Amino acid sequence: MASVIPASNSSMRSDRNTYVGKRFVHVKNPYLDSMDEDILYHLDLGTKTHNLPAMFGDVKFVCVGGSPNRMKAFALFMHKELGLEEAEEDIKDICAGTDRYCMYKTGPVLTISHGMGIPSISIMLHELIKLLHHARCCDVTIIRIGTSGGIGIAPGTVVITDIAVDSFFKPQFEQAILDNIVTRSTELDKELCEELFNCSKEIPNFPTLIGHTMCTYDFYEGQGRLDGALCSFSREKKLDYLKRAYKAGVRNIEMESTVFTAMCGLCGLKAAVVCVTLLNRLDCDQINLPHDVLVEYQQWPQLLISNFIRRRLGLCD
Amino acid sequence: MASVIPASNSSMRSDRNTYVGKRFVHVKNPYLDSMDEDILYHLDLGTKTHNLPAMFGDVKFVCVGGSPNRMKAFALFMHKELGLEEAEEDIKDICAGTDRYCMYKTGPVLTISHGMGIPSISIMLHELIKLLHHARCCDVTIIRIGTSGGIGIAPGTVVITDIAVDSFFKPQFEQAILDNIVTRSTELDKELCEELFNCSKEIPNFPTLIGHTMCTYDFYEGQGRLDGALCSFSREKKLDYLKRAYKAGVRNIEMESTVFTAMCGLCGLKAAVVCVTLLNRLDCDQINLPHDVLVEYQQWPQLLISNFIRRRLGLCD
Repeated sequence: MASVIPASNSSMRSDRNTYVGKRFVHVKNPYLDSMDEDILYHLDLGTKTHNLPAMFGDVKFVCVGGSPNRMKAFALFMHKELGLEEAEEDIKDICAGTDRYCMYKTGPVLTISHGMGIPSISIMLHELIKLLHHARCCDVTIIRIGTSGGIGIAPGTVVITDIAVDSFFKPQFEQAILDNIVTRSTELDKELCEELFNCSKEIPNFPTLIGHTMCTYDFYEGQGRLDGALCSFSREKKLDYLKRAYKAGVRNIEMESTVFTAMCGLCGLKAAVVCVTLLNRLDCDQINLPHDVLVEYQQWPQLLISNFIRRRLGLCD
Repeated sequence: MASVIPASNSSMRSDRNTYVGKRFVHVKNPYLDSMDEDILYHLDLGTKTHNLPAMFGDVKFVCVGGSPNRMKAFALFMHKELGLEEAEEDIKDICAGTDRYCMYKTGPVLTISHGMGIPSISIMLHELIKLLHHARCCDVTIIRIGTSGGIGIAPGTVVITDIAVDSFFKPQFEQAILDNIVTRSTELDKELCEELFNCSKEIPNFPTLIGHTMCTYDFYEGQGRLDGALCSFSREKKLDYLKRAYKAGVRNIEMESTVFTAMCGLCGLKAAVVCVTLLNRLDCDQINLPHDVLVEYQQWPQLLISNFIRRRLGLCD
């Protein structure tokens, strides 16, 4: 990996300009730099109202996930794991002025919720990428930690995505731009994927695998569930579809990975997707895990990412 | 309109079975009734854990909108407008066990948040429609109240949607079912649309119009914004697209209406979409209204729907 975290993160705000040859976040929009002000509306932040370089210039890791509560729990967990001096109660939602997303910063780790589905994460990513650009961040690694439905694997398995595919098992994301459809690559950084997998081996009894992740626009009909308000296909058709997905290399299904990988790839962010599976879709459609098991499963991607970040920061034993 | 609200809503729980010829909510899923239990996972409700008919059987109006805070504000507003006896602090989030959506019930009015984008509202609608079905609700009217970008109209205008169209100005919603694409109608109830428009005329200085609403999967590139992290088109191309949309009858753009109209239509729910515009997209892309103006604009659809519900319930002067 090219990125190396300096021993002291606190020094990074002032000597940002000494980063020569570092990988900056790039926006691909010729209009942006000529704007007098950039209001990041859904984050309730802006270039005139906030000193973004001072607030975010030292960010090296961005962790995103759907649920605001889960992301707050992750931020508190990271705070503990990094042994930061700041009091836990000082970790405030940076986007408290809006209820669209929540955001927490613990040392070099920025944690943000993104809601459910491609459009919701896409709005957040546009504004996050502009934020990282305005803050002149460099060498940023971004990881989505989430929950998913598994295919042919035991519930509780953590899937590290090697490639995100659409409903047709194609490794691409179709983006509507005005009234044109543009196809974008959903490839992920192979080295980061392997680094995460190696990291998982260091945690005892941690079931992890690398596999394709299918991203759909819908939780019910689009994922072949028989328990939605609408269902027009048979149990056989459902199983046939999921088995074809398995044959194509898909090991889990969620609702954000294609646009996440496409946008991060275009903007020079090294990205990974790490999701735990809550059920095996070849067995059932409903998520009926006891609450404590659900909570435990949801912590596993957090544990892996915490270990990864601590390793990168040289904080592991 | 066929639906008439009985004078006493509280009597409806017990005499539900006397509703002959009423319009029930229908799920279109042959598997649902054979399920031993239905867990509405993202609402944190279920048929075994909750008495859904007792909790929701008297619901006649469902109001949905993106922002949880805005929907809570609407529930408190409706509580006041309906003159309900219950104390305001007793209006609790029924979905407090999850942070995916929030839900409040004030008399016959159920208020729910749906997050941003088609996938997010679609998950909520599947589970809401099943909830209304399990609760054996009848004659339910559902209204989405939201914010939007206007085209060629002054910010602060309330648009009542006559038809929802996609990015290509087509009145349809494309639903992926397994790996097939099915096209669904996005038509809305004309009488309800006119009833709402007539209702708006009774409110002084209330700028309302009926028009097409365009629903996109993306806030930035998909709506022709020049201020996203990615932008590959010119200002001219943007304006050309928005002007073509205007010519096709589109007066505002948001991100949920096509799937909302398609699903409600299929399940026998009379539906309407009422959104205020926060900017005129022919003039700008950024939402830079002062906070108090933004708050005021967001209240307008709420005011209209409150008037409409009070009129339906015979509570207007």
